Amino acid sequence: MLTAYNYQEFLSSSFLKKESNKTNRDIMDSVKKIIDDIQDKGDRALLGYIEKFDGVIPENLLVSREERKAAWKLVDTKTITALRNAAENIKSFHQKQLQNSRIMQQDENIYAGQLYRPIERVGIYVPGGTASYPSSVLMNAIPAVLAGVENVSMATPVRNGQPINPVLLVAADIVGVHNIYKVGGVQAIAAFAYGTETIPSVDKIVGPGNAYVAAAKALVYGDVGIDMIAGPSEVAIVADESANASYVAADLIAQAEHDPSARAILFSLSAELIDRVNDELKNQCSVLPREEIATEALNVNGASVLVSDIDQAFELCNAVAPEHLEIQTERPLECLGKVKHAGSVFLGHYTPEALGDYYAGPNHVLPTSGTAKFSSGLSVDDFIKKTTFLYYSEAALKDASEDVMQLAKQEQLEGHSRAIEKRIK
Amino acid sequence: MLTAYNYQEFLSSSFLKKESNKTNRDIMDSVKKIIDDIQDKGDRALLGYIEKFDGVIPENLLVSREERKAAWKLVDTKTITALRNAAENIKSFHQKQLQNSRIMQQDENIYAGQLYRPIERVGIYVPGGTASYPSSVLMNAIPAVLAGVENVSMATPVRNGQPINPVLLVAADIVGVHNIYKVGGVQAIAAFAYGTETIPSVDKIVGPGNAYVAAAKALVYGDVGIDMIAGPSEVAIVADESANASYVAADLIAQAEHDPSARAILFSLSAELIDRVNDELKNQCSVLPREEIATEALNVNGASVLVSDIDQAFELCNAVAPEHLEIQTERPLECLGKVKHAGSVFLGHYTPEALGDYYAGPNHVLPTSGTAKFSSGLSVDDFIKKTTFLYYSEAALKDASEDVMQLAKQEQLEGHSRAIEKRIK
Repeated sequence: MLTAYNYQEFLSSSFLKKESNKTNRDIMDSVKKIIDDIQDKGDRALLGYIEKFDGVIPENLLVSREERKAAWKLVDTKTITALRNAAENIKSFHQKQLQNSRIMQQDENIYAGQLYRPIERVGIYVPGGTASYPSSVLMNAIPAVLAGVENVSMATPVRNGQPINPVLLVAADIVGVHNIYKVGGVQAIAAFAYGTETIPSVDKIVGPGNAYVAAAKALVYGDVGIDMIAGPSEVAIVADESANASYVAADLIAQAEHDPSARAILFSLSAELIDRVNDELKNQCSVLPREEIATEALNVNGASVLVSDIDQAFELCNAVAPEHLEIQTERPLECLGKVKHAGSVFLGHYTPEALGDYYAGPNHVLPTSGTAKFSSGLSVDDFIKKTTFLYYSEAALKDASEDVMQLAKQEQLEGHSRAIEKRIK
Repeated sequence: MLTAYNYQEFLSSSFLKKESNKTNRDIMDSVKKIIDDIQDKGDRALLGYIEKFDGVIPENLLVSREERKAAWKLVDTKTITALRNAAENIKSFHQKQLQNSRIMQQDENIYAGQLYRPIERVGIYVPGGTASYPSSVLMNAIPAVLAGVENVSMATPVRNGQPINPVLLVAADIVGVHNIYKVGGVQAIAAFAYGTETIPSVDKIVGPGNAYVAAAKALVYGDVGIDMIAGPSEVAIVADESANASYVAADLIAQAEHDPSARAILFSLSAELIDRVNDELKNQCSVLPREEIATEALNVNGASVLVSDIDQAFELCNAVAPEHLEIQTERPLECLGKVKHAGSVFLGHYTPEALGDYYAGPNHVLPTSGTAKFSSGLSVDDFIKKTTFLYYSEAALKDASEDVMQLAKQEQLEGHSRAIEKRIK
């Protein structure tokens, strides 16, 4: 099922081609129109689009206390416990990312450093329908709340008057989401970006979504912050003879079942392992509820690459910069130093990606499509701003003045030079 | 010259309106065409655009060692000393931002943390012509080099065969820029983003530019990283009776001389100070080389706001989230805790913004147009990616398995559940 490559073939494969993630112009144009409309006309336009795309305008856009309370009665205790335990682990991991303001220099004449301050208002987008993931609520909200964001809002669509998945509401309560709005798609992004009478604007929008939501985030980027523009999910597995073919196959399938465009790549030091994995893929897929999706993804976007040694595996793997990287080798920790570019790394035979997707602590919002070469998964840092500060005494300014004035003159900014001159004369 | 506001008036002024920074569609379309062309046809298209926009195709796009060496003879020693001293200060400040990989958890069964890894290849854009700023080279390159970026490239246009400003080349040498290419505008951004035969692609593009460069950066964002989309520069000054009107005016002018659309706002606790500042502005502008630009900026985008107390000043100031914030009060350090949103803060009567623009250490690449509410100035962090890692033992996975499988089933991702199940049975 996996397309077989050797080292050379993989180097010239489409997996290493820099392709533009850009949405096509048609989508962009229609999305822009919705955003402009909502920015201009507020609630009136917003409600119109909700009716158009989701069938029914909810009585109240803001989910009420009663609705949130009622959700708890609809979720079984096993799920509530699992959510609580996951939230604890995620909190514990992210808490350790918190940092203090820093002082870079402090002497008699100069005081300089960085203030760490939280973003004030954040909006989390949570898709509805089959891709309605409570784990997304945990992963997006926890770092925001820990960072000290004052207001964490959430938006999720209500289709044809159907109630919101109660597990989402319970997850939102567990992590402390302040407001939840019944609005989805481009409308939600536009409302968060520019505000309407009912939905206050936020400073940053995070969370997954379909191609339209992604286009909307790209369009409002700059007016508000966004987390990233995510592409299809992907996993790369580096495996040696010690790997269990059944585990490897299960993890490739877990990736593939997301989406027909999901990517699953196996870098193997053993030809035999590749054969066994392919057999396992067939067997395991045949009894999978999402068989069709997984099979298509594996056939179209699945790859096995036979490498000559572990360094070759990591050379190719770093070139891919996968969202998820599993290292199923005999000595996985010894490979960690070879990782240059990846979203998140899962080490050893008992650390499947699924464990991290839901539960262990690291964030599951990760850079896709090779963007791990320049960006990171979601963390507390995404909700913090660093403001530099500087104090110079009169004496310190005098010492610096000649150099500063010289540089200002070089750039023909005489006003800059005079702002120094006035103070030292 | 400054338009006078009181608290209420300022609250409903255009300074606090969320306006879209988005470039208009016409610019976007023409910029997209250039990018697509260069992505498709490489050097052939690139050279065509260089000829079209800059008049002459340089013999070699890559600045030679000889050209770089020759530049040193064309720059006076006073400037070289000033550049070296500035570079030292900027290095010293940014060095203290460097962080180590972190371990969040490490016990018998679980090992989890974050790897800090540099971006591999960075491209710095440096505008040509009158806005050719050597300080930009220092501010953009130093954090990249300190972060451990392997290849720092720079692109700057050569107009009509004119040589590159030698101060730029000297600055690039001082900070260790690896390659310099003679290409500007949208062409440079496209070449950095997608690579051509002559110019290798990079992973992240940083640096200022005009509206076309900004549009190009917005369009390639996602395929490569970018620093930010910068708007016009701005300063806000909070001043009390202790402030020197001549210094305040000089700093407002230093901002205003950049650009007719630059913003300069004075929050004053004293009506008398506002009057004196206005008088100073008139006098100082009248003898300024860039008088016209500065006067237009102050008349159109200048504001004085009389506030009743220091808290009111900071309430309004945080609502603006200015790129630069000067606090010219009697006890400036005591105000630092009131700053929520700003790019960079300058404290006291002897810390003019110009000192930070060139010299003191903090970066001058800062969030504009209120984006300090959700983003930060350039720092070493912008050139580092954080990759999370996770190891679970078999026993740890067994402990977690029930919860993880429960959550996977809630999301109807049976393949995720089975990836756990296979390992614990």
